Amino acid sequence: MTDTWWLNPCKAIDAQAYEQALARQQQLTKPAGSLGQLEALAVQLAGLQGRVKPSVEHLWIAIFAGDHGVVAEGVSAYPQAVTGQMLHNFVSGGAAISVLARQLDAQLEVIDLGTVTTSLALPGVRHLNIGAGTANFVNAPAMTEAQGRLALQAGRDSVQRAVEHGTQLFIGGEMGIGNTTAASALACALLDCPVSDLTGPGTGLNAQGVSHKVAVIERALARHAGQRDDALHTLFNLGGFEIAALVGAYLACAQAGIVVLVDGFICSVAALVATRMNPACREWLVFGHRGAEPGHRHVLQRLEAQPLLDLGLRLGEGSGAALAVPLLRLACALHGQMATFAEAAVADRPA
Amino acid sequence: MTDTWWLNPCKAIDAQAYEQALARQQQLTKPAGSLGQLEALAVQLAGLQGRVKPSVEHLWIAIFAGDHGVVAEGVSAYPQAVTGQMLHNFVSGGAAISVLARQLDAQLEVIDLGTVTTSLALPGVRHLNIGAGTANFVNAPAMTEAQGRLALQAGRDSVQRAVEHGTQLFIGGEMGIGNTTAASALACALLDCPVSDLTGPGTGLNAQGVSHKVAVIERALARHAGQRDDALHTLFNLGGFEIAALVGAYLACAQAGIVVLVDGFICSVAALVATRMNPACREWLVFGHRGAEPGHRHVLQRLEAQPLLDLGLRLGEGSGAALAVPLLRLACALHGQMATFAEAAVADRPA
Repeated sequence: MTDTWWLNPCKAIDAQAYEQALARQQQLTKPAGSLGQLEALAVQLAGLQGRVKPSVEHLWIAIFAGDHGVVAEGVSAYPQAVTGQMLHNFVSGGAAISVLARQLDAQLEVIDLGTVTTSLALPGVRHLNIGAGTANFVNAPAMTEAQGRLALQAGRDSVQRAVEHGTQLFIGGEMGIGNTTAASALACALLDCPVSDLTGPGTGLNAQGVSHKVAVIERALARHAGQRDDALHTLFNLGGFEIAALVGAYLACAQAGIVVLVDGFICSVAALVATRMNPACREWLVFGHRGAEPGHRHVLQRLEAQPLLDLGLRLGEGSGAALAVPLLRLACALHGQMATFAEAAVADRPA
Repeated sequence: MTDTWWLNPCKAIDAQAYEQALARQQQLTKPAGSLGQLEALAVQLAGLQGRVKPSVEHLWIAIFAGDHGVVAEGVSAYPQAVTGQMLHNFVSGGAAISVLARQLDAQLEVIDLGTVTTSLALPGVRHLNIGAGTANFVNAPAMTEAQGRLALQAGRDSVQRAVEHGTQLFIGGEMGIGNTTAASALACALLDCPVSDLTGPGTGLNAQGVSHKVAVIERALARHAGQRDDALHTLFNLGGFEIAALVGAYLACAQAGIVVLVDGFICSVAALVATRMNPACREWLVFGHRGAEPGHRHVLQRLEAQPLLDLGLRLGEGSGAALAVPLLRLACALHGQMATFAEAAVADRPA
């Protein structure tokens, strides 16, 4: 009865395309290695896509939104109504990710998994109504198993639509007042780190606010300590609907063979959960940026991730990943279009 | 008789546009500061361009090439003929910068200031024939004052063409086997640093090669120590034709009111020379990336520059600056197109 689709195998890397792309990089008219991180990136994309000359022109951005019961503890600088208001802003074109999606010629979809404003019916938003936000995880599991499975499946469903659309690169974004608290709690549980290492100001708490947030997370961790070794139930206990959807999306991308560009702290924690549930998904994850939220650095290190940008971003919405898209596209263009030493009759350095 | 055009005043920043852009940033639907470095960048561009909503769509890339007499000392991993061969590759479309210019819809011009292959007559390249490369600066000034002035003017002339083309953003690139040696020597003379701090592998020297390069630069610095306090003559003594052209271009941009996006180590040293010749040019310089050449970090620190990318690049050609262009464009799009809290009816955080 219980379908555990997330355990299905991830698509394997194409070793031949990878090796051919690696050989091609050595022949391009530049000193070997002089394009730095972009060389390894192009080769990785070649292996993942099974094409010596990879492409990430067709871009899908899915924004997953949800509210968080833990906001009752006073952990956010913004009122909870903002989650619903921002859904409207996403589809109206005024949010940061809306602007970025237009500029990048991306397909943008907005999925409301469950906010406190349950009456919302916004044109262009998929309202799934999994719950009126999660439960306050200081007192209870954030979501029931049934809710958690629906949220995972919502991410997988978005990837299925992306596949049908010919997507070559998937970005998941998130919106949810209070979700850095959920992400910090999840990361602490999975990494067994001191809460203060992984807890920061989110959208704008002061030092006192951060201390309070740490105390709230410590209470939640004590409450759910019994299931710490089980990534799935830790997600259900401490996560959010939008975080579970991201986990489902990342795992489904790896199974379908779609490259993922991971956004900031919350998305990186979702990526961490995904790798705990099915470790082979890791090689499908490219990391867009290192954000300003202090815990992000720790999570990236544990994932052995080398993000492309480091611009002090802390917006979410998938914005940091979107900002890194041109680097992926230009890495592909350089890899695919530069002349070889032989083609250009340029002398390589003596061997 | 001696025209010192580089001392002419630089265009002043538009304080009103700057303040209006700063106010606008605070009203956009995102937590204040959440777009990190991109917020200050958009505001800076607004002040420089005198427009509350700046734009860098019209992009000019000028590649300046020249050969270096100091290559006779054995300081490069590549044969000197590569400078001329790469000129052909630039205009044929196979070089990294050619690919990037196409992808970014930039105007690309290629200027040969003087290479050892004096017979070159490549369609699409401006051959200026200032000399058959510079003199070996271990024994003599790299260039005469007349040559140096021609090279400075060549950069200024490129900017004049860019202005006539409606350019909003100028990138200077460089090509010249041996030019990291010239750049390191120049930076050491101007910053009074130990040579080993500012000398690296360039396009691919091993440790022994780097040690030899350090020794060569130390001899050159001793030879020209008398004029160290004079940035212009230090440039003529230790620079290269393409470096002098970059200096002229940066100064001319600041005078004409064109924003400059500075590339890697060599370009940053040219920027350092420019700021010593006319300090007010500094605010027109945006820095694209921190490259792999170890001295770049020092030069950027001394310029108080915060580069946008850090990808381990060490190619030159303007490639690192070109890779940062989408970030400038997206910063402008976010700044210009995002909704304000009032427009989107989204609650801002309590004051």
